[in-house]
Amino acid sequence: MKKAPSCLAKFLFDMEKTKWMTEAIELSKNNVNNGGGPFGAVIVRNNVIVGRGVNRVTVNCDPTAHAEVTAIREASKNLGTFDLSDCEIYTSCEPCPMCLGAIYWARLKTIYYGNTKVDAAKIGFDDQFIYDEIDRPINERSIPTKQILPEKAIEAFKLWDEKDDKIEY
Amino acid sequence: MKKAPSCLAKFLFDMEKTKWMTEAIELSKNNVNNGGGPFGAVIVRNNVIVGRGVNRVTVNCDPTAHAEVTAIREASKNLGTFDLSDCEIYTSCEPCPMCLGAIYWARLKTIYYGNTKVDAAKIGFDDQFIYDEIDRPINERSIPTKQILPEKAIEAFKLWDEKDDKIEY
Repeated sequence: MKKAPSCLAKFLFDMEKTKWMTEAIELSKNNVNNGGGPFGAVIVRNNVIVGRGVNRVTVNCDPTAHAEVTAIREASKNLGTFDLSDCEIYTSCEPCPMCLGAIYWARLKTIYYGNTKVDAAKIGFDDQFIYDEIDRPINERSIPTKQILPEKAIEAFKLWDEKDDKIEY
Repeated sequence: MKKAPSCLAKFLFDMEKTKWMTEAIELSKNNVNNGGGPFGAVIVRNNVIVGRGVNRVTVNCDPTAHAEVTAIREASKNLGTFDLSDCEIYTSCEPCPMCLGAIYWARLKTIYYGNTKVDAAKIGFDDQFIYDEIDRPINERSIPTKQILPEKAIEAFKLWDEKDDKIEY
């Protein structure tokens, strides 16, 4: 008899997860029909969706408008905070490095994904080159990257360091 | 005599770079005084600034509002394209993985930066943990990451694959 409640709890838990991922997938499918890329994401807090996003890169002329980034921006705006550590993200596909970075900065507590980056590469969305590039030393990356004016740039950091009323994050 | 024009060309070339980086640094310093983080960036195309950005994460409640992401969004909007391959970015600090991802997606042709990520870590903006996390296999990352419903998620990719009028990027 002890096992039943645990099984029920797990069943209900999985039902919840399935519901949110289904929502993210529906967004991704509808977005294809609306001229966008096949990606959707929802952010959930206390069993309520607080942000939604789809890939609008080409439609909005915004290279950063991936589903996850858009959902994070919407959730943060809706909740009035840059800290989403009490939220989970359900994304129809494994996040790219940009979105993964955004997820870490937003401090999301769990990531659920549907398709893998291998699935994405098969239909033309290959982000492996970005993973590879991030791994390389700066002077070996495909985009030429050069440091200039460090002695001036550091002035802003000094200003920040000496500021009393700064909001750290 | 042959050397003079080459030296002059290099001098003018360096003057240009210095001008744009100085602009990015000015943005970063002004932003500290305006309640934001000590980061600024400009995007330049044919010797004209086409996008500016500063870090407004805490002020705008947007974890993705780093200087580079914001500048890319503005430049893309201004130019009406998601492809910035004829543009350069001048950023007051070495980009974090999120911004680096955005830079690759936007296809910027050159990155100039002022401060390093080591400088940034010293004043409390440490992004090394994100570099480390991205490198790890999914099941070893600090944010629990789980795949669910792949059999449903793939439907969006099939829709995309079969679509005739899709805009690929």
